[in-house]
Amino acid sequence: MMMRMSSLFVRTLRDDPADAEVPSHRLLVRAGYIRRAAPGIYSWLPLGLRVLRRVEGIIREEMNGIGAQELSFPALLPREPYEASNRWTTYGNGIFRLQDRKGGDYLLGPTHEEMFTLAVKDMYASYKDLPVWLYQIQTKYRDEARPRAGVLRGREFIMKDSYSFDTTDEGLDRSYAAHRAAYIRVFDRLGFDYVIVKATSGAMGGSKSEEFLAKADVGEDTYVRCTACDYAANVEAVQVRTPAPSAYDDVPAAHAEQTPDTPTIQTLVDHLNEKYPRDDRPWAAGDTLKNVLVVLKHPDGTREPVAIGVPGDREVDQKRLEGQLEPTEVEPFGETEFAMHPSLVKGYIGPGALGEKSESGIRYLVDPRVVEGTRWVTGANIDGSHVVDLVVGRDFVPDGTIEAADVRDGDACPNCEEGALESARGIEMGHIFQLGRWFAEALELKVLDENGKLVTVTMGSYGIGVTRAVAAIAEGTLDELGLAWPREVAPADVHIIAAGKAPEIFAAAEKIASDLDAAGVQVLYDDRAGKVSPGVKFKDAELIGVPTIVVVGRDLAESGTVELKDRRSGEKENVAADQVVDHLVSLVRS
Amino acid sequence: MMMRMSSLFVRTLRDDPADAEVPSHRLLVRAGYIRRAAPGIYSWLPLGLRVLRRVEGIIREEMNGIGAQELSFPALLPREPYEASNRWTTYGNGIFRLQDRKGGDYLLGPTHEEMFTLAVKDMYASYKDLPVWLYQIQTKYRDEARPRAGVLRGREFIMKDSYSFDTTDEGLDRSYAAHRAAYIRVFDRLGFDYVIVKATSGAMGGSKSEEFLAKADVGEDTYVRCTACDYAANVEAVQVRTPAPSAYDDVPAAHAEQTPDTPTIQTLVDHLNEKYPRDDRPWAAGDTLKNVLVVLKHPDGTREPVAIGVPGDREVDQKRLEGQLEPTEVEPFGETEFAMHPSLVKGYIGPGALGEKSESGIRYLVDPRVVEGTRWVTGANIDGSHVVDLVVGRDFVPDGTIEAADVRDGDACPNCEEGALESARGIEMGHIFQLGRWFAEALELKVLDENGKLVTVTMGSYGIGVTRAVAAIAEGTLDELGLAWPREVAPADVHIIAAGKAPEIFAAAEKIASDLDAAGVQVLYDDRAGKVSPGVKFKDAELIGVPTIVVVGRDLAESGTVELKDRRSGEKENVAADQVVDHLVSLVRS
Repeated sequence: MMMRMSSLFVRTLRDDPADAEVPSHRLLVRAGYIRRAAPGIYSWLPLGLRVLRRVEGIIREEMNGIGAQELSFPALLPREPYEASNRWTTYGNGIFRLQDRKGGDYLLGPTHEEMFTLAVKDMYASYKDLPVWLYQIQTKYRDEARPRAGVLRGREFIMKDSYSFDTTDEGLDRSYAAHRAAYIRVFDRLGFDYVIVKATSGAMGGSKSEEFLAKADVGEDTYVRCTACDYAANVEAVQVRTPAPSAYDDVPAAHAEQTPDTPTIQTLVDHLNEKYPRDDRPWAAGDTLKNVLVVLKHPDGTREPVAIGVPGDREVDQKRLEGQLEPTEVEPFGETEFAMHPSLVKGYIGPGALGEKSESGIRYLVDPRVVEGTRWVTGANIDGSHVVDLVVGRDFVPDGTIEAADVRDGDACPNCEEGALESARGIEMGHIFQLGRWFAEALELKVLDENGKLVTVTMGSYGIGVTRAVAAIAEGTLDELGLAWPREVAPADVHIIAAGKAPEIFAAAEKIASDLDAAGVQVLYDDRAGKVSPGVKFKDAELIGVPTIVVVGRDLAESGTVELKDRRSGEKENVAADQVVDHLVSLVRS
Repeated sequence: MMMRMSSLFVRTLRDDPADAEVPSHRLLVRAGYIRRAAPGIYSWLPLGLRVLRRVEGIIREEMNGIGAQELSFPALLPREPYEASNRWTTYGNGIFRLQDRKGGDYLLGPTHEEMFTLAVKDMYASYKDLPVWLYQIQTKYRDEARPRAGVLRGREFIMKDSYSFDTTDEGLDRSYAAHRAAYIRVFDRLGFDYVIVKATSGAMGGSKSEEFLAKADVGEDTYVRCTACDYAANVEAVQVRTPAPSAYDDVPAAHAEQTPDTPTIQTLVDHLNEKYPRDDRPWAAGDTLKNVLVVLKHPDGTREPVAIGVPGDREVDQKRLEGQLEPTEVEPFGETEFAMHPSLVKGYIGPGALGEKSESGIRYLVDPRVVEGTRWVTGANIDGSHVVDLVVGRDFVPDGTIEAADVRDGDACPNCEEGALESARGIEMGHIFQLGRWFAEALELKVLDENGKLVTVTMGSYGIGVTRAVAAIAEGTLDELGLAWPREVAPADVHIIAAGKAPEIFAAAEKIASDLDAAGVQVLYDDRAGKVSPGVKFKDAELIGVPTIVVVGRDLAESGTVELKDRRSGEKENVAADQVVDHLVSLVRS
């Protein structure tokens, strides 16, 4: 179906929309692909819908290709299954809830684990039925606190979500591998520059977990990669290299020292170097142990104060901390909490006052580097006083470890001996992870095994943000002139411009357009006559970003040629008008 | 993509689901096409989704064929545009409403007039941009009081909705005609037995309005058609033939008569015939004028009592009455209302006590047959007394007319002289109507005309119930064995059964299946081995309803043939196994 600019439902804008934060958002609005209906909620105009459908088509082909079966669950979902999984509660205010006319509780599905699980429970009863891989491409809803960047993080968005169902862990590994391979094919075809990183699995645990991140400076996800090996991980998933426990026979007994007026790590270090200089090397921030208090707000509404101990040269990274605890939320430890725990001496809190068995009863979790035998300077829990030579395992035992310290460029790679980490930003396009038996347990999805015994099914979860993919592709391919789509997802193959006023030009352009259309090439033909100048048409073509631009203009009369321009490279070539259709057909099909 | 019964995500049920009211619902669940998630909310399993996508594909082709452009609006919509059109209020509790985390009001779109109107306002500014025809195929939500019959009347459902935008009434006529023609092509291709009937346009007025009804006994819509001409109309849209005003010079003056104990029309007629017999013919119910009191509940919440006068041989048809008044609702006139209107004498209410200028002030609307010059027996507004020879225009003047009387088989056709009406039931599959300038006025959609003056745009509205169409096709084609899809929408072209245990049978069936698959024929191959008997496979094939069933069984060894069975006619033919692929390819493509 040929599109004609004279009738296409589009209006390009010369100015950036006021609310657009990132280039892809600006250009998708300016080029007439999307329009905002409400915060994080967008309408897809004809050009945008074409790209969206092509992205969906690629995903569908690759999912069908591995034998996954498509179905479609509702978006409006009853409370009951989400009650059974406890997610009705744990979702908090991140989902849209509503009631029907009879007062029944519903939600707009943010993900569909429960529905997939119940569908398999409804249909299947035996190990012989498994594995089964199911997916849908469907509209989802999340009441994001901060919808941003157009369709990059929306509140109504399209996802492809699939789930695999197996009886054994080995089966799950095979299902995971098949989906991983399909995802690689999808993202290769979508024309992405992407990286696969280790990721956390969220609240539900599970073992393998990887994200497909589009490399993008505007991305919300920070990941790190090793300069030497192929290690790459979402910052939230980085597990720091844990030193081996060290001997501490020759460490002197812990001793409290006067450290008045040392409210910061730096003032403490300066004070130590002035009053208690060491022989071998000066005191550094990394010698100190900083104890940060927070309050965990659990999904059931209970609040739990927790202390987190990190080396003094690190900060607690809120996102990493929350990533470990999800869906529990993290809130500041305020004056109210201090008042409730009089045993804590503000500014000088130390391990002596922390731990489940201490007077405060506050759980004490430490950075994994705080291993047995390491020695620290830390709060003595006496005003104006720190304790020196405090040894883990000898002088205190933490209640556990937590990955909450920030990750920095230059940190040692957890995977190899040589490399260091360096960080970059990306957009999460896909997430595959081994969900395990959590939902199957909660919703009692069991099948009979070879021996006639009921076994709980194990699941894999595989998602792709479809609307987000459109924005990410745009973001990754645009240039200063406008959008520049990869051929596989472009709204058309060829953008033909009738550049001039002569009827011969329009006649020739029209003929090329219809011949291409008849040959199955997707054509966008700028047939606008009247006041629309060639300059305006060129600008619109650059903005809209169809991969090949054909200019039918003055050259036609002069040399019988038309100009082909590659939108991305800018390369131009002149082709004889009577050969251009064959030329383009083979270009598009190559 | 070949489907194999051994791995297809389906389970057929031998028993009807408990909540299924109509055959199509029973069979779509039993054959594994859909599953209920909540009242009026369904999941589409792989077989169902295939049919749904094919129906969508046909609609899309025909809409694109007339030059309509597809876009996609969100389902989650902000309150503001619906406030501007006043529908936030008038929708009452027929829509789902919700709030986001910031307390902003949203609704789940039941229709998208506002969004389409605003999109055109955003993009276009001149008459030169028009006409434009826009459509979407999208999930919609209505909080139906009585969701029923599976996906026939759901609360989450898919609709194709289009709107045309023109500057002139003639343009709207052309847009309407183009859509009407496209709809005829769609419904012809969908394999429907349908009828196009005149319809009401709902609250928004507009002139032309027609519904496409699938003929079906289970349908919720009653329509009438003429036995002589091509007139057909939804009962709500029937406009009764209005007699010409008649002379009343020789009618005696109205006179009140004692009619004690005549609580019903029949007792009144009997009383009249006994006490006041007429010379020419006996009194009949049609000589009396029955006045029915109701209360209108307007969208703004105000309540207005209204009297409706219909010939005594007719009843007030609640649906017809509501159809005229929508979105106003109709409620009974109860004791409270009687108490508020002491001038009304219950059981003997007559025109003398009614009308805007009367003591009661109650608006008095009459059946269109109650024209000037007609004479009636009706309540005298005195207990136990009726008035006879009351003439319209001489003795009373109603405040207006209303189409509220029931329509009956045998009623005169409003369109021709000879015919009578007969009624039938149908499922509303499509509705096209001229919406006019209502939304464009409300949302200020104006464009510049040829003379540079701002004119308000006029709109046409065109809808097809897509999920409903699947159920309606099923309903119209099923038989006692199961579903029996028309070829254009079937989930597969051919259902191949390996009937037997011999490896040669499976090998032959497999080869036929793969050869057909390679030739682009959609195959459902029942490759189940082990305990699944040929009988079970036959039953499943009949239930699932693919148009052509191929049985690879004993005949193969005996005569080298396989059996082809037409699912709908039941006709069988034997075809040589080595020719069956060519045979089926030409059958499917024919």
